[in-house]
Amino acid sequence: MNISGPYLLYLGDATDPLAVKTSRGLAVWRPELCIGEYRGEACTLTLGLPRMGFAEAAGAGARTMVLGVANAGGSMGAQAIAHVVEALRAGLNVASGLHDRLNGCPEIVAAAKEAGRQLFDVREPPAQLAVGNGRPREGKRLLTVGTDCSVGKMYTTLALERELRGRRINADFRATGQTGILIAQSGIAIDAVVADFISGATEAISPARDDGGWDLIEGQGSLYHPSYAGVSLGLLHGAQPDAILLCHELGREHIRGIPGRPLPGLAACIEANLTAARLTNPQVIAVGVALNSSCLSPEAARQACAAIERELGLPCEDPMVSGVARIAERLLQCFEPCAVA
Amino acid sequence: MNISGPYLLYLGDATDPLAVKTSRGLAVWRPELCIGEYRGEACTLTLGLPRMGFAEAAGAGARTMVLGVANAGGSMGAQAIAHVVEALRAGLNVASGLHDRLNGCPEIVAAAKEAGRQLFDVREPPAQLAVGNGRPREGKRLLTVGTDCSVGKMYTTLALERELRGRRINADFRATGQTGILIAQSGIAIDAVVADFISGATEAISPARDDGGWDLIEGQGSLYHPSYAGVSLGLLHGAQPDAILLCHELGREHIRGIPGRPLPGLAACIEANLTAARLTNPQVIAVGVALNSSCLSPEAARQACAAIERELGLPCEDPMVSGVARIAERLLQCFEPCAVA
Repeated sequence: MNISGPYLLYLGDATDPLAVKTSRGLAVWRPELCIGEYRGEACTLTLGLPRMGFAEAAGAGARTMVLGVANAGGSMGAQAIAHVVEALRAGLNVASGLHDRLNGCPEIVAAAKEAGRQLFDVREPPAQLAVGNGRPREGKRLLTVGTDCSVGKMYTTLALERELRGRRINADFRATGQTGILIAQSGIAIDAVVADFISGATEAISPARDDGGWDLIEGQGSLYHPSYAGVSLGLLHGAQPDAILLCHELGREHIRGIPGRPLPGLAACIEANLTAARLTNPQVIAVGVALNSSCLSPEAARQACAAIERELGLPCEDPMVSGVARIAERLLQCFEPCAVA
Repeated sequence: MNISGPYLLYLGDATDPLAVKTSRGLAVWRPELCIGEYRGEACTLTLGLPRMGFAEAAGAGARTMVLGVANAGGSMGAQAIAHVVEALRAGLNVASGLHDRLNGCPEIVAAAKEAGRQLFDVREPPAQLAVGNGRPREGKRLLTVGTDCSVGKMYTTLALERELRGRRINADFRATGQTGILIAQSGIAIDAVVADFISGATEAISPARDDGGWDLIEGQGSLYHPSYAGVSLGLLHGAQPDAILLCHELGREHIRGIPGRPLPGLAACIEANLTAARLTNPQVIAVGVALNSSCLSPEAARQACAAIERELGLPCEDPMVSGVARIAERLLQCFEPCAVA
């Protein structure tokens, strides 16, 4: 999947900031890729981009409209379908991260065919995947792992990409979830592949590289989440990481979606990930902890980071607050020399 | 999926014993379910069942023909398709464990519709699955785990079912692979579900039970197989096993399909499985080792079992040679009292 940019971000009539989080992710992490936003009459939100109609966006150079907004349940409403058809007729491709597939809607499929445009259902895995083989491959890879789902793995991975690129190190975010795929313009929704192909899909999105740079692979789930640990383990084996970076949210009371189930301790979680990762990379190390500390005051957050650093002997930062410079430094120290772009 | 018996086993024109291994599994483990075999003119094999045509089998009470034979690549040839259509018209349902789906062949779908018969693609997971939740559920469950793929997990699980039932203990084989599903007449091909649903599918096939009996869950893959460990971990979490039974093949030189990659040690493999399994059942224990010792002489095999018993302090038997009586005894000792059927 190679999704052409630049993008027009479709906000529709959204009024709930959570409903546009995919579009916001794009605007934050790939501003150079976002040429404008489409807002309906009732839309109360903006991402600060120029407001554009479909034809106007196409005229301004947009190649793909991103449908980053959904009804509850991830379905497309009648209005969204009509707008997608209009965008296709205006000459835009359309990409969607919704559960409802663009390719499952006959009206949209017909319009795309007629207009000669492409549809990208980013949750749909490629038809032809190979099973993983675990054979050592060239290149350096880092994988973000978590104590739980939704603890900031995508954000952290992108923050590290930005930090390394700022230091003129070759580094590429490798996407495993729908928002990440739209940001990277490629990738595979790992949790949507057939179970036998989890590690194979991960190998496919982070192939051997020989430029001395890093593949930074977006993690999913947690070895400690009883719903999704299989995905996390296949990802860990397929990623064959040289380095893991643990992501955690302070103050979370239980594993996401399962009241009463506690989160693992950080040291235990790192050790479990390293133990499992050694199957395909015996030299794997942990290089840091990325903490979502938004539930704490800035001062309390600093103290929490310091306490974790003392306990684990690893740099600990909140990427939203202080960035990931110290984690990047630790990574580079551990793996010198690295290619300079 | 509830596949109606009795079965007519379709051998077609098979000449390779490996090609009929699904049918042979049925004849061995569910003889009471197998009413006859269909053999083409060129077929050189027999499972020792009465040879029958389609109409004859239907007349004798068969409800479902099992397509347990495939070309290389798992595809259906033109002759097999013609025979499936003929069987449907004779009043039989048809079940298949092939990669090629019955429901993907318009000719077969039309014939089934016309005849009012059912098609069972046993590799096809159910459309509606829930994600796992890991909440403790009632009932006793044993899961077979392996040092590798294809080390005898299905055979061992079925042998244990037979052994326990012989002792008038309630015990039910829960199938996770295509041959197992045909034997159990229900189940889910775990490696074919979407990655997010591995543990949820396992929870679905082994729901809570309160009769004091055992669910014996067929394992898949290995935590040490870099292609499939995600499946094995999701299965382990979803099974929520009270007991695990390790399966291993003596003399195997490398992990299946990956020359050069060694198998894990037995003690390490048991420990890794117990550690992971504790996430959903902290009380899990190992109750034995089932050894495929077919590469050794009977005397050498006995010695190998004895050596493993001494090392691990667990009963070790080759189910093909000596059955699993001592493993069953250990299981029952550890979990008395059990319901008597």
